[in-house]
Amino acid sequence: MKIIRSIAGMRKYSGGARSKGKTVGFVPTMGYLHEGHLSLIRRAKKECDLTVLSIFVNPTQFGPAEDYKKYPRDLKHDEAIARRLGVNAIFLPTVDKMYPPGFCTYVSVEGLSGILCGRSRPGHFRGVATVVSKLFNIVQPDVAYFGQKDAQQAVIIRRFVKDLNMGVKIRVLPIIREKDGLALSSRNKYLSGQERKDALVLYAALRGARRRVLAGERSAKRVVSAIKRLIEEKKGAKIDYVSVVEADSLTEIKRISGKVLIALAVRIGKTRLIDNVIIIKKEGTKAQRHRGTKKKMEIRCG
Amino acid sequence: MKIIRSIAGMRKYSGGARSKGKTVGFVPTMGYLHEGHLSLIRRAKKECDLTVLSIFVNPTQFGPAEDYKKYPRDLKHDEAIARRLGVNAIFLPTVDKMYPPGFCTYVSVEGLSGILCGRSRPGHFRGVATVVSKLFNIVQPDVAYFGQKDAQQAVIIRRFVKDLNMGVKIRVLPIIREKDGLALSSRNKYLSGQERKDALVLYAALRGARRRVLAGERSAKRVVSAIKRLIEEKKGAKIDYVSVVEADSLTEIKRISGKVLIALAVRIGKTRLIDNVIIIKKEGTKAQRHRGTKKKMEIRCG
Repeated sequence: MKIIRSIAGMRKYSGGARSKGKTVGFVPTMGYLHEGHLSLIRRAKKECDLTVLSIFVNPTQFGPAEDYKKYPRDLKHDEAIARRLGVNAIFLPTVDKMYPPGFCTYVSVEGLSGILCGRSRPGHFRGVATVVSKLFNIVQPDVAYFGQKDAQQAVIIRRFVKDLNMGVKIRVLPIIREKDGLALSSRNKYLSGQERKDALVLYAALRGARRRVLAGERSAKRVVSAIKRLIEEKKGAKIDYVSVVEADSLTEIKRISGKVLIALAVRIGKTRLIDNVIIIKKEGTKAQRHRGTKKKMEIRCG
Repeated sequence: MKIIRSIAGMRKYSGGARSKGKTVGFVPTMGYLHEGHLSLIRRAKKECDLTVLSIFVNPTQFGPAEDYKKYPRDLKHDEAIARRLGVNAIFLPTVDKMYPPGFCTYVSVEGLSGILCGRSRPGHFRGVATVVSKLFNIVQPDVAYFGQKDAQQAVIIRRFVKDLNMGVKIRVLPIIREKDGLALSSRNKYLSGQERKDALVLYAALRGARRRVLAGERSAKRVVSAIKRLIEEKKGAKIDYVSVVEADSLTEIKRISGKVLIALAVRIGKTRLIDNVIIIKKEGTKAQRHRGTKKKMEIRCG
């Protein structure tokens, strides 16, 4: 496994591979790898000739009051995992090289960046779109892998890749959860024992919402209310948002239909956690409805 | 010569060429080609295996009150010229394909985009940076060619290519002028006979400034004043700005030293024209100054 620290070195490695007709799979991360990241690496290994992992805690996607400095880091542990999984190269750029003096270019996905998580994290998605653009230009992957847990991030990345005509295929893989339902996140490390227990309410509430929708609920408002009621029962939980949106455009909807994302962000103590489910609710055709056929539903969850 | 209208077709053409080890030179234009463009094409032909010319009047770089609709177009004439010069492919995308419904991603070069031309053309350089990013991602050139007439554009393009780690070499070639000094521009077509004569004051004033600086003038303020005085003598001329800036960073300077850009924008009647000169003013070393050596000066003009 290669450890590449320079931008020129990374470009050369990828360029060399691609010029020999090899496909490059890319898993960009902020490190502190968990099973969620591992699922991405395993898929890249399966689908591409070479797998490149990047580890870079990107300062431009953290707000001034956010946890950039204390964001968990454990490079040794990450390297060992990557080696075990057969990663071909780890790209480890430094902040100085990624943002040299005079740096002033940003990629913004307007409209999609100011809603949901973007409302309480101004500048966050501009930072994400900018660093992912940079990484794509350096690594030049054929396919890049992201987790569905960051649902809005995934939509934004698909959007700017399409809008800027970047030749990268984006794969978004399902959320990986603990046995008790908690979505994996490097930030779970911040949780105390009690907070860890309280945090279970997030997925419990989302599961409840899914059941309601399956049972025929169409009102986004009622679904949101039910989720909020459950979460508010936990004393240590403070809701940032609970939203029901069209899954690809992130447009807020009133009536649940089609491919829907139910997403939330909640502060458990001082730790901000996010989680979501996707529900695909197919309506029967007009003819079917006239025949009184039961409306077809299909469910897919993050 | 290939005429390529689809984005996928362009990507395939370039990708195919590069996979065979051929270098691609790229000249992005808004068409209505003049000798300035031709100098870029000729240089690309000299330096690269294949030369791609794009013609796309980009709506996102025009303000609502600007000349997008009436911007001169003459595709037949452009095609004939390109063919004569040995261009290998013309890329002719449509607005619908470049900006499909839902498009919402922009590349912004902050700090460099709100000054000089950016002050009176808000959004212009965001439009330029966005479309050039898109074109680079589609055409994937090794080298791209731009004219020094759009001095601020050239600095901004160099900046975002560096900041976003795009693997494209940027070449900026000197301004091409009519025999009487008028900088070539597709917009010169808008000028009436009298306006055409009045427009000569732009380069005359810049030449005067250059002479002053050569004669030892170090005050940017006095240079600007002298230029303004000359231009204001023309009744039909309305100054947008006259600025003396450090040539690479576009930082306003007070004392002329190093590589300096003197740039201006002036409305002649309804037509907004820009022009500039670069002066490299090398100071003698300390030792030379102590020996009383004459300060060395070197001049390069756009």
